[in-house]
Amino acid sequence: MDFEQSEHVNVLTERVRRFMQQEVYPAEKLYYEQEHTAADRWTWQPVLRELRAKAKSQGLWIFPLPKEVGGHGLSLLEYAPLAEAMSTSPIGAETFNCYTGTIWYAQLIHQHATPAAREQYLPRLLKECEITLVLARTDPEAPRHARHSIIIVPRHAKGLTVEGYDTIFGYDHAPYGHARLRFENVRVPAENLLGREGEGFTLMQGGIGVGRVALGMGSLGAAERGLYEMCKWGDERVISGQKLAERQVFADAVARSRMEINQFRACIMRTAWLIQKHGMKAARSEVAQCKVLAPNMALAVLDRAIQFLGGVGVSHERPLAEMYAYQRTVRIGEGADEVHRDLIARLELAQQRQARGTPPQG
Amino acid sequence: MDFEQSEHVNVLTERVRRFMQQEVYPAEKLYYEQEHTAADRWTWQPVLRELRAKAKSQGLWIFPLPKEVGGHGLSLLEYAPLAEAMSTSPIGAETFNCYTGTIWYAQLIHQHATPAAREQYLPRLLKECEITLVLARTDPEAPRHARHSIIIVPRHAKGLTVEGYDTIFGYDHAPYGHARLRFENVRVPAENLLGREGEGFTLMQGGIGVGRVALGMGSLGAAERGLYEMCKWGDERVISGQKLAERQVFADAVARSRMEINQFRACIMRTAWLIQKHGMKAARSEVAQCKVLAPNMALAVLDRAIQFLGGVGVSHERPLAEMYAYQRTVRIGEGADEVHRDLIARLELAQQRQARGTPPQG
Amino acid sequence: MDFEQSEHVNVLTERVRRFMQQEVYPAEKLYYEQEHTAADRWTWQPVLRELRAKAKSQGLWIFPLPKEVGGHGLSLLEYAPLAEAMSTSPIGAETFNCYTGTIWYAQLIHQHATPAAREQYLPRLLKECEITLVLARTDPEAPRHARHSIIIVPRHAKGLTVEGYDTIFGYDHAPYGHARLRFENVRVPAENLLGREGEGFTLMQGGIGVGRVALGMGSLGAAERGLYEMCKWGDERVISGQKLAERQVFADAVARSRMEINQFRACIMRTAWLIQKHGMKAARSEVAQCKVLAPNMALAVLDRAIQFLGGVGVSHERPLAEMYAYQRTVRIGEGADEVHRDLIARLELAQQRQARGTPPQG
Amino acid sequence: MDFEQSEHVNVLTERVRRFMQQEVYPAEKLYYEQEHTAADRWTWQPVLRELRAKAKSQGLWIFPLPKEVGGHGLSLLEYAPLAEAMSTSPIGAETFNCYTGTIWYAQLIHQHATPAAREQYLPRLLKECEITLVLARTDPEAPRHARHSIIIVPRHAKGLTVEGYDTIFGYDHAPYGHARLRFENVRVPAENLLGREGEGFTLMQGGIGVGRVALGMGSLGAAERGLYEMCKWGDERVISGQKLAERQVFADAVARSRMEINQFRACIMRTAWLIQKHGMKAARSEVAQCKVLAPNMALAVLDRAIQFLGGVGVSHERPLAEMYAYQRTVRIGEGADEVHRDLIARLELAQQRQARGTPPQG
Repeated sequence: MDFEQSEHVNVLTERVRRFMQQEVYPAEKLYYEQEHTAADRWTWQPVLRELRAKAKSQGLWIFPLPKEVGGHGLSLLEYAPLAEAMSTSPIGAETFNCYTGTIWYAQLIHQHATPAAREQYLPRLLKECEITLVLARTDPEAPRHARHSIIIVPRHAKGLTVEGYDTIFGYDHAPYGHARLRFENVRVPAENLLGREGEGFTLMQGGIGVGRVALGMGSLGAAERGLYEMCKWGDERVISGQKLAERQVFADAVARSRMEINQFRACIMRTAWLIQKHGMKAARSEVAQCKVLAPNMALAVLDRAIQFLGGVGVSHERPLAEMYAYQRTVRIGEGADEVHRDLIARLELAQQRQARGTPPQG
Repeated sequence: MDFEQSEHVNVLTERVRRFMQQEVYPAEKLYYEQEHTAADRWTWQPVLRELRAKAKSQGLWIFPLPKEVGGHGLSLLEYAPLAEAMSTSPIGAETFNCYTGTIWYAQLIHQHATPAAREQYLPRLLKECEITLVLARTDPEAPRHARHSIIIVPRHAKGLTVEGYDTIFGYDHAPYGHARLRFENVRVPAENLLGREGEGFTLMQGGIGVGRVALGMGSLGAAERGLYEMCKWGDERVISGQKLAERQVFADAVARSRMEINQFRACIMRTAWLIQKHGMKAARSEVAQCKVLAPNMALAVLDRAIQFLGGVGVSHERPLAEMYAYQRTVRIGEGADEVHRDLIARLELAQQRQARGTPPQG
Repeated sequence: MDFEQSEHVNVLTERVRRFMQQEVYPAEKLYYEQEHTAADRWTWQPVLRELRAKAKSQGLWIFPLPKEVGGHGLSLLEYAPLAEAMSTSPIGAETFNCYTGTIWYAQLIHQHATPAAREQYLPRLLKECEITLVLARTDPEAPRHARHSIIIVPRHAKGLTVEGYDTIFGYDHAPYGHARLRFENVRVPAENLLGREGEGFTLMQGGIGVGRVALGMGSLGAAERGLYEMCKWGDERVISGQKLAERQVFADAVARSRMEINQFRACIMRTAWLIQKHGMKAARSEVAQCKVLAPNMALAVLDRAIQFLGGVGVSHERPLAEMYAYQRTVRIGEGADEVHRDLIARLELAQQRQARGTPPQG
Repeated sequence: MDFEQSEHVNVLTERVRRFMQQEVYPAEKLYYEQEHTAADRWTWQPVLRELRAKAKSQGLWIFPLPKEVGGHGLSLLEYAPLAEAMSTSPIGAETFNCYTGTIWYAQLIHQHATPAAREQYLPRLLKECEITLVLARTDPEAPRHARHSIIIVPRHAKGLTVEGYDTIFGYDHAPYGHARLRFENVRVPAENLLGREGEGFTLMQGGIGVGRVALGMGSLGAAERGLYEMCKWGDERVISGQKLAERQVFADAVARSRMEINQFRACIMRTAWLIQKHGMKAARSEVAQCKVLAPNMALAVLDRAIQFLGGVGVSHERPLAEMYAYQRTVRIGEGADEVHRDLIARLELAQQRQARGTPPQG
C-alpha cells in the first residue's frame, strides 16, 4: 500500500495551488462585477480571459489531455489533486481550461472522431468553446443501449437556439449555466458523428467514472475553500476582545470540517484507484458512494463557513453561497442521493449474501 | 498510489474471516451463558479456551509479534485488516490472542525488557495473561515527561488486589473489564523495569499510533458486524408479506452504513500508512481525526442494526448492544471527542496560517 | 389559548420535585448497591420501601387514581407534569407508586372488574404488586378485534413461572424487568375477567393515549435529569483552570438540550390536551409523533450528559447510562420509530389530499 | 390549559388559507416573470398590486393593526396563525399588507408619532410604502441605551440614495431586498421623531418579541409550503410504476417534516402566550430558543422538499429555493444561532443554580 503521488504530480499540484491563491482568488470579485454588468454574460469575461492566457503561458493547461494536443497526459489518479486545487474557486477550472465538460468532450473527440473532424473541431473546443456534443436518439427502434449517437454540433449552427437559462437558487451560473436548447432542422456533415452510429450510450458510459471522480474532486475543492475562508476569517475577526479562531464553537466547526474532508478524500482517491486498476464495473458501489458523499460533505463544510462569515458568507463577497447552491444541485443531478443509495444497498445485500453463502435472490 | 495489500496478507485475512464466521460467531451465545453462570467470571471460559487452542493450532496467533515468539511479524498496515476481521466479535481478539493490551505489552516487553525478564514474562503474558504492566510515577520531581517508569507486575503479586469492577451501560466486560486495582507494598525485582527509569512516558507514547489504529480497526469490525447482522436479518425477516431487505427505509440504512464504513476505512488505512512511513508526529492530526471518527461511525451503524433487529438487537442474542456500549466509551476514553477536536482545530489553524504565509500566533 | 396549569397542580408538582431532589436522588446509589447484592433482586429493596412509605405518608401517592382508592383524581393533563418530575430518577415512579403499568392496571380494574374482584385485587395491586393482568387469546375464531380478554392473575398462581429475564444493554431493570413468563394450566376464577369476554383488545386500546403520554413524560424526565446532571457537573468541574460550564462547547450542548426538551414538552402537552378534549382518534398522528420524538429527544440529551460526565456518565455513579439504555428500547417497543413514521406519513398525505380537494386514493 | 383559538380567528385563518391557495400560489410564476423583466424591479409588480386590491376588498388586510386604521386589532397570539398562513408564499405577506416591517413601523407610528405625523405618514406607509423609519444615533455621548432615536424619513427624501443591493444566494429579494442606503444631508421636520429623543433603543426593544414571533411564523409558513409541495409532488410523480408518495423513503421525509413542524409550532405558540401574558423579559430564553429553532426547522423541511422535487425544486418553478435562501439568512441575522445558544445556556445554568440552591456565580 502506498498513498503518495509522484514528485512530478506534487510539483504540478503545488503550482496550481499557488496560482489559485495568488491569481485566481483575488480576481473573483472583479469577475463577478464584470459578469453582472456585461452586455453578454454568456461568454468569458475579460478578467477570465487574462487568467486563462496567463495559466496557458505557464503550461498549466488541460492537464488530463495527451501531450500532443497540449496537455500533460495525466492519469485519473494523477489529475485528481489538480482538479481539487482548481475547484477551490468557481472560475478555477475555466482558468486552466479544465472544465469537466470540456475535458470530457475533448477526450471523446480525440479518441472517437474521424481524423478530419478531430483536426477541425478539437482546437475549436479547446480555444473558443465553440462546439458542443449532442447525444441524439438516432434509432428509436434499436435495442435499448444502441439507440443513441453522439454528434459534434457547432454552437452557432443554423437552427440551434437557446430558449432560456434555468436558475438555481437565483444563480444562472453564467457563462456555462443550465440552458434549454432548441434544435430545428440543424444539419451537420456525417463526419461529425463520434464512433459508430448507435454507439452513443456506450461512449457516454465510458466517461462516468472519470466524471464522477472529477465531480468529487470539485466537492473537495469547494469544501477546502470553505475551510480556508473560515480559518482566515477566524484569525481576522475579533468578538468581545477574543479572536473568533480561539472560540471553541468555531474550533469545533474547523475540526469537524477537516475530518469530513480528509475522510472523503481518502475514500475518493481509493475509488479513483479502483476505477483505474480494476475498471468501472468493479467500482460501481464505490462510485455511487462517492456520488452521494461528495456534495453532502461539501454542503456541511460550506454551511459552517457561511454561518461564521455571516452576511459576508451569503453575499457575493465570497464564492461560498454560489458554491453551496451548486453543490446542492449535485445531490440531485445525474441520479439523486436516493437513487444511488438504493443501488449501494442492492449491491451490498447481494455481496453479503454471497459472502454468507446464501443463494442469490430474485 | 496503490491501495492493495500483498497476496500473503489477503490470504491471512480471508482465513481469519472464515474462522470468525464458522467458529467464533456460533460460539458467542454459549460463551455468554458460560460467562454469566461461571463461578469465576474473570477468567477465560471453556468455550473461549477451545477457540484459542483451535486458532493457535492453525497458526492464527499473535499476528503482529515477531516470528521468533510465535507471531507473523506483520507491520501495522498489514495487521490492520486482520484486526478488523477479528473485531467483528467481542471474543474475536482473545481468540487469536490479539487483544490490543496483550499485543502492546508483548511488544514493550520484547523490545525493552532485560533478556531474563523477557524470557520469564513474555510466555506468561502470551499463554496465561498472568502479568500486567504498571505505569508508575517513580520520580515526582523529575521533568514532566521523565517522571514515570513501566514495571512488570505479576497479576497475583502479593499486595495487589482488585477493589472492584466498574460497569459500563450495565456491562462489566469480563474477563478484561475496568478494574480498580489496589497496590499495597507490592514488591518486584529491579529487572522487572522496562527500559530505563523515567522512560515510561516515552515508551507509552511510542505505542499510541499503533494503539489508535487498533482501536479504529476495532470500530470498523464492530460496524461491519452490525451491517452483517442487519443484512442477514433483512433477508430473513418478512413484514406484511415483504422481506425487510426490500423495504426502502431498510435499504437506506444499509447504504448509509456501507458509505460510512468505507469512508472511514480509507481514512484510517491512510493514517496507518502515514504513521508507518512518516512517523507519529507527522500523523498527529490524522490520528486524532481517526480517534474521533472511529467510534462515532461504529455507533451510527450499530444503532441502525439495533433498531432493525429490535428486541433481539438490544438483548444478548446478538453482540450488538454490548458492542454499542463499548464503542460509546471509546468516545470518552483516552481523550474525549472534544479534546481531540480541539487539537485537530489548533493544528489546522496553524497549518492554514503557514500556507497563507501568516506568521504563527501566540 | 392558555398554557398554564392550575395552582393546585403547580403546588403538587413542586412538592414532587422537591421530594425527588431531597429524598430520591441521594438514595439512588444505595438502591443500586442493595439491588446488586440482594438475595432476591426481583423485589423492592429496603431503601425503596422506605421512600415509598415516606411519599405515601405525605399523600404523594397514585396521583391519577380516584380519591376513593387513595389517589388525587388528576386528569391526564394535570398528571403530566408530575409524571415528568418523578421520571427524573429510575426509582421515581415506584416511589410514588405511579409506575405506568401499575396505574394502568389499577384503572382497568377500577373501571372494569366485578365489585368482588375489585375489592380483592385492587389493594393487592397497589400495596404489594402481587397481581398481573394477562391479555389472553380466548377465542381464536372470533372477529379480529374480539379474540382477546384481560384476566387478573396473581403473581404466585400455580403454574405461572418466570423462565428468565432479558437484558437490555446489559441491564435487567430489576425489579420490573423484561420477564419471559410460562403459563401451565394456570387456573383463576371466572370473576377475574375484566369487562366482557372478547373485550380485551378494546380495553387495551383505551389506554394507549394515556400510556403514550406517560411514556413521553418519562422521556422528558430522563432528559431533564440529564440536563440537571450536566449543568451541575459543569459548575463543579474545572479543566485547565476554567470551569467546564464556561466552555462554549459545553454551553452549546446545554442550549441544544434545553431547546429540544422545551420544544417536545410543548408538543406533548398539546397532544395530551388533544386526547383529553377531542379523543384518541382525533389525536392519532400527534400521538404517533410523540411516540417517535420522545425517546429520540431524551437520547440526544442523555448522550451529551454522558459525554461530558465521561467515565462517571457511563457508570452507575449516575443513572444516565441506565436511562439511556431504557430510552433506547422505547424507540423499538410498542411499534418501532419506522412504523410510527409510516403512519404519520399516511395520515399526512391523506389530510393534504383532502385540503387540496384531491379525491382520496386507493 | 387550552390550546384552541377563538372561532373568530379560526374563520379568518381559514379565509387567508383559501386565498393563498386559490389566488396567491397560482400568481407566483407570473409575479416572478414580471419581476425579472420589469424596468423597475424595486416596486410592486402589477400582479401583486391586483392581489393586494383583491385582499383589501375582502377585508383581509393589516390584521394586527387597530380597527380604526383599517385592521382587525388582533393580539399576538391571534395573529400568529394568520402570519403562518400568509408566509407560505414569498409574496403572501405583501398581499395582505402584513410584511413584518410594515406592521412594526405602523405600530410604532400609531403609538409614538405626533398626531400630525401619524395622520400624514401612516397612510403613506400603509398604501404606498413611501416612508421608512431610521434608527439614528442622535447623541453619542448619552448612556448606552439612550443614544438612538427613531425618525420617519420619506423614501424619496432629498439626499437619500440607494447605493446598491446585496444578493443572498444569488437572490436580491426585490422589491424589499437588502439595500445599502446613503444619507447625505437628509432633512426632515422635527415632528418626524417618534417618541422622545434618545428613546429609539427602547422603542426597538419593545418590538423584538413580536418580531421574533412573526419571524417564527414565517419559518412555519415556509416549512408548511415545503411539505405541501412535497406531498402534492409525491401524489403526481410516478417512478418505475410506483407513485412517489408510496415510497418509504419519501414517506419517511414527510413524517419527519410533520413532526418537526408540529413540535416547533407548539413551542412558538407557547412562547407567544408567554410574551403576551408575562412579558418579554420572562420569555427571554424561550424567544431565543425560537429564534434558533425556526429557521433550522424550515431549512430541514425545505431541503427535503427541494430534494424530492429535484430540478424543479431548485428552480423558480416553485418558491422553495428562494424560501430556503431566505431562511438560511435568518440563522445569521439579528444574532447568529451561536449567539442565541450562548444566551440560552447562560440563562439555563443560572436557573439550574437557583433551583439547586447554589449561590449565583460571577
